[in-house]
Amino acid sequence: MEKSGIRVVIIGSGNVATHLSLALDSIVDIVQVWSRNMENAAGLAGKLKAAVPLSDLEKVDRDADFYLVAVNDDAVPEIFRALNDVKGIIAHTSGSVELKKLIEETGKENIGVFYPLQTFSKTTNPDIKSIPFFIEGSTREVSVFLKDIALHLSERVFFADSDLRRHIHLAAVFANNFANYMWDIADRYLRENTDFDIKILKPLLEESLRKAMSVNPYNAQTGPAVRGDSTVIAKHESTLNGTDKEIYKLISDCIIESHKITDK
Amino acid sequence: MEKSGIRVVIIGSGNVATHLSLALDSIVDIVQVWSRNMENAAGLAGKLKAAVPLSDLEKVDRDADFYLVAVNDDAVPEIFRALNDVKGIIAHTSGSVELKKLIEETGKENIGVFYPLQTFSKTTNPDIKSIPFFIEGSTREVSVFLKDIALHLSERVFFADSDLRRHIHLAAVFANNFANYMWDIADRYLRENTDFDIKILKPLLEESLRKAMSVNPYNAQTGPAVRGDSTVIAKHESTLNGTDKEIYKLISDCIIESHKITDK
Repeated sequence: MEKSGIRVVIIGSGNVATHLSLALDSIVDIVQVWSRNMENAAGLAGKLKAAVPLSDLEKVDRDADFYLVAVNDDAVPEIFRALNDVKGIIAHTSGSVELKKLIEETGKENIGVFYPLQTFSKTTNPDIKSIPFFIEGSTREVSVFLKDIALHLSERVFFADSDLRRHIHLAAVFANNFANYMWDIADRYLRENTDFDIKILKPLLEESLRKAMSVNPYNAQTGPAVRGDSTVIAKHESTLNGTDKEIYKLISDCIIESHKITDK
Repeated sequence: MEKSGIRVVIIGSGNVATHLSLALDSIVDIVQVWSRNMENAAGLAGKLKAAVPLSDLEKVDRDADFYLVAVNDDAVPEIFRALNDVKGIIAHTSGSVELKKLIEETGKENIGVFYPLQTFSKTTNPDIKSIPFFIEGSTREVSVFLKDIALHLSERVFFADSDLRRHIHLAAVFANNFANYMWDIADRYLRENTDFDIKILKPLLEESLRKAMSVNPYNAQTGPAVRGDSTVIAKHESTLNGTDKEIYKLISDCIIESHKITDK
């Protein structure tokens, strides 16, 4: 499904930029990679077929078809303003930067969002085909263009306005960031009180995630709170201090309450 | 590594009893399966080489070498009392029932704990070799006997007194039960506000668990709180209500605080 002829500039050289451009490289012609840091731009460009690295935004090719902006949320408006005079489509990869504000700020009409719902890191290589992509365009043409590109990468591409993206992002904060903090508390607790760390829980956590995804988390809920085991809960609370104790109480109460109401 | 000659009675027919007895069946001679419910006892016994099902505790073979008690925490003391007169070793599979209390209550000297740190369900078949087993015996002989059996099932067998087991169980409540509740909040939020549910986050959550286990959860922490992104946090809080909002605030504050202190 070669789409050569489409000339793309990658703005950014971090993990998102790297994983997306490696995946795009066989589909489109990536002509340039920009990064504030020339070494980083060269590092990423060196992994691609025929991309030229640069660190000066003014040297960005003004005639490309598509500018993919994978930088920190804070830097997105600044980049969009600096590329204001390009004819091609500019899209950012952020879950939380609103498109409407960018249209207001830049006055540019053909811009969009190309948001992969995944966390990327140097060491891992997530299967890009299974990653959901959320697409938003300032016009129908932009939406269709972005969706077409995304469909070459992934089987799961959705149109999503900024509201829907905000909802998904908020859900991800609970499911992803806050769940990770629960693992962090467990990890600290184990290191302080035993010779183990979070890795001892790995088979359990993998199995629980599998279960929650197959039967849904409500029905997969286990533990003293859902059993209403007040003896164990009291014993645990007396062991804990500070915010760990506060979190234990609040979440146990929520689990008890949520299963009491709905199970009736 | 056949250990035949060791005659075992399985007490219980739930998920833990089922998975453990299927794994033990090729190593020892399971002679009986007891359940309060005869159908359930017969269901499990039917899957084993040569086990007789029964629902009357008085008919349990008094001359077996090992009685594995995989029942609800609450039922453990009652079962131990009912089997008070057997000569063989009795062990339960619970993370939170204390051995000392059982010794006091039953007066029986050769009892122990055989605790697999895993959640078992009907539909899944976790790799038993990777499951950590925590072993405790009322005497050194019992500990060695139980460890020997566990080592035939798993590569990861540890001695753990009731204190260590309690610590591991408390850590698992955070990492497993509370993380699941974070997924539950996300699932509810998505169902209420979008056409998606928690499954849209599956690739993200799988990748995040992998990352947390490889670099540790503290260093894997992402999201608006660890970035100190107060704009996004304020926007999210204004969207939420009730205990979801309380949890959002408390955990965001904890993440901010914990990364502020330690990053300096």
